[in-house]
Amino acid sequence: MINIAILGYGNLGRGVECAIKNTSDMKLCYVFTRRAPETVKIMTESAKVCHIDDLINKKDEIDVLIICGGSATDLPVQTPEYVKYFNVIDSFDTHAKIPDHFENVNKNALMSGKIGIISVGWDPGMFSLNRLYANAVLPNGQDYTFWGKGVSQGHSDAIRRIDGVIDARQYTVPVESALNAVRSGENPTLTTRQKHTRICFVVADDNADKVLIEKQIKEMPNYFADYDTTVNFITMEEMKREHSALPHGGTVIRSGKTGWENENTHIIEYSLKLDSNPEFTSNVLVAYARAAYRLNKQGESGCKTVFDIPPVLLSEKTPEELRMNLL
Amino acid sequence: MINIAILGYGNLGRGVECAIKNTSDMKLCYVFTRRAPETVKIMTESAKVCHIDDLINKKDEIDVLIICGGSATDLPVQTPEYVKYFNVIDSFDTHAKIPDHFENVNKNALMSGKIGIISVGWDPGMFSLNRLYANAVLPNGQDYTFWGKGVSQGHSDAIRRIDGVIDARQYTVPVESALNAVRSGENPTLTTRQKHTRICFVVADDNADKVLIEKQIKEMPNYFADYDTTVNFITMEEMKREHSALPHGGTVIRSGKTGWENENTHIIEYSLKLDSNPEFTSNVLVAYARAAYRLNKQGESGCKTVFDIPPVLLSEKTPEELRMNLL
Repeated sequence: MINIAILGYGNLGRGVECAIKNTSDMKLCYVFTRRAPETVKIMTESAKVCHIDDLINKKDEIDVLIICGGSATDLPVQTPEYVKYFNVIDSFDTHAKIPDHFENVNKNALMSGKIGIISVGWDPGMFSLNRLYANAVLPNGQDYTFWGKGVSQGHSDAIRRIDGVIDARQYTVPVESALNAVRSGENPTLTTRQKHTRICFVVADDNADKVLIEKQIKEMPNYFADYDTTVNFITMEEMKREHSALPHGGTVIRSGKTGWENENTHIIEYSLKLDSNPEFTSNVLVAYARAAYRLNKQGESGCKTVFDIPPVLLSEKTPEELRMNLL
Repeated sequence: MINIAILGYGNLGRGVECAIKNTSDMKLCYVFTRRAPETVKIMTESAKVCHIDDLINKKDEIDVLIICGGSATDLPVQTPEYVKYFNVIDSFDTHAKIPDHFENVNKNALMSGKIGIISVGWDPGMFSLNRLYANAVLPNGQDYTFWGKGVSQGHSDAIRRIDGVIDARQYTVPVESALNAVRSGENPTLTTRQKHTRICFVVADDNADKVLIEKQIKEMPNYFADYDTTVNFITMEEMKREHSALPHGGTVIRSGKTGWENENTHIIEYSLKLDSNPEFTSNVLVAYARAAYRLNKQGESGCKTVFDIPPVLLSEKTPEELRMNLL
């Protein structure tokens, strides 16, 4: 059995707990939290909740630590720190800062002899893998990534920070005609506005100026200004009834040419439709935790990404079973 | 530069030649053939055509040999034989015999210190990879593979063996309603007949009994008896004009559940739309030839499949570039 600990018990941590229940080679031993442990209720009866201050003391009981914090402030500190003691997995998703994060984790992982697999999930993660495979197979081509339909938590949070907003949910929606143009092999050049629209559901304070809120959303730089955005004001009851789930998904497409004169077109498409964004991400984290454990047993150390991991290490099944049943 | 040789110059060998033209780290040195070399015209001016009997003499000039023969009789003999002298890649696609082929290649590769990557292409190959990733991420779920719309060469050949048939082309077509049921997460149980239909275009001899030919096709065991099959008789002119390409493709879907009570459904879908089945397969072979070269340089040997290869080894780009641009 591979002994797993979770650091951080939010949506992602709970998803990891559920994912481990669906394996037969892993056991959840500990959940570590910054909160008072007695206030945190988990679902796994055999696991213990401990304070984060006790984490390093338990290092001999833990094979892999799955770090379930946020990319903004938690992971840049926690992953380089805890890879000094544990094999670790994180879902660091600030694409532009991945090279720095990689270096920070790699340096400490090489010193400790542990494995740290960073940026695991679906984007970065499964989408990245599909971009890499498709680029390697069709070097002469073009990449497209579409997100949604799904809830963007960053955009929902940005709306909630506006004065007079009580709650908000933002859906990112790919533009169907753009998707179809890409699928047809036309290799269109698409602006930000042509690829996605944004649909917002907002609960406003009774006294709030809704016209002003809508204007502030639609003109918000980076988040909304470059998109066609629709704003719908709803009641708190409707928000809870219709918008409490966290679905997401998206599509990665590569369109490429082969042949002596580039006469043939090929389309590779990978898509995800997810009822629960955090639970799917958690399942990917758990598969890579298995790989981290096995790689470290083989004597490897350092920072890795999904690009470095042989797929065979992700599965509970033996290499022989995989060749027989899935190849 | 990685020096590549091709063994066998049919559709697949020509596709490999085209794929190498689209790389900047590989060079085609030799094409080996069973035919008289002077009768084989290739497109790469800098490469030489030689007889297969000269292959082993050239072993010091070749980094990877891409074996482009057929799975029925060529590859079971050639791959285990030539891995004694070369790093080799093949596209062995008789799924049921992969475990035996693996053992035969592995034994000789371990003795010679070379790498042999077998069953490379799209199914087995990219489809297998997607089945493995999706199974590892969603262990609680169900797999579906649909093929087509595309030309099945095995089924076309089977029709051509019928008395009175001059030429034939068979298209495998997935049943749209079955695909949609799978995409909806219903996890349907589908019979062979419910998943695919078969559409045949046949050029018959003027004196042939078309009613009998149609009956023989539709009742042919293994190939057609379990499917809804349509037979269209056409002229040789129409065959040449409308059915000379070799398009193919298909879809791999895994539908799986997550959550403490399996309350959430996720759909992972990977699909290919290929203008040229052999050229796409060739491009996959060439990417894995790069990986074979790199793995062998790292001191590894033995038989491998796509399951064993870290994705990073497939790309011309450096690991740093890949993390920066595709992760």
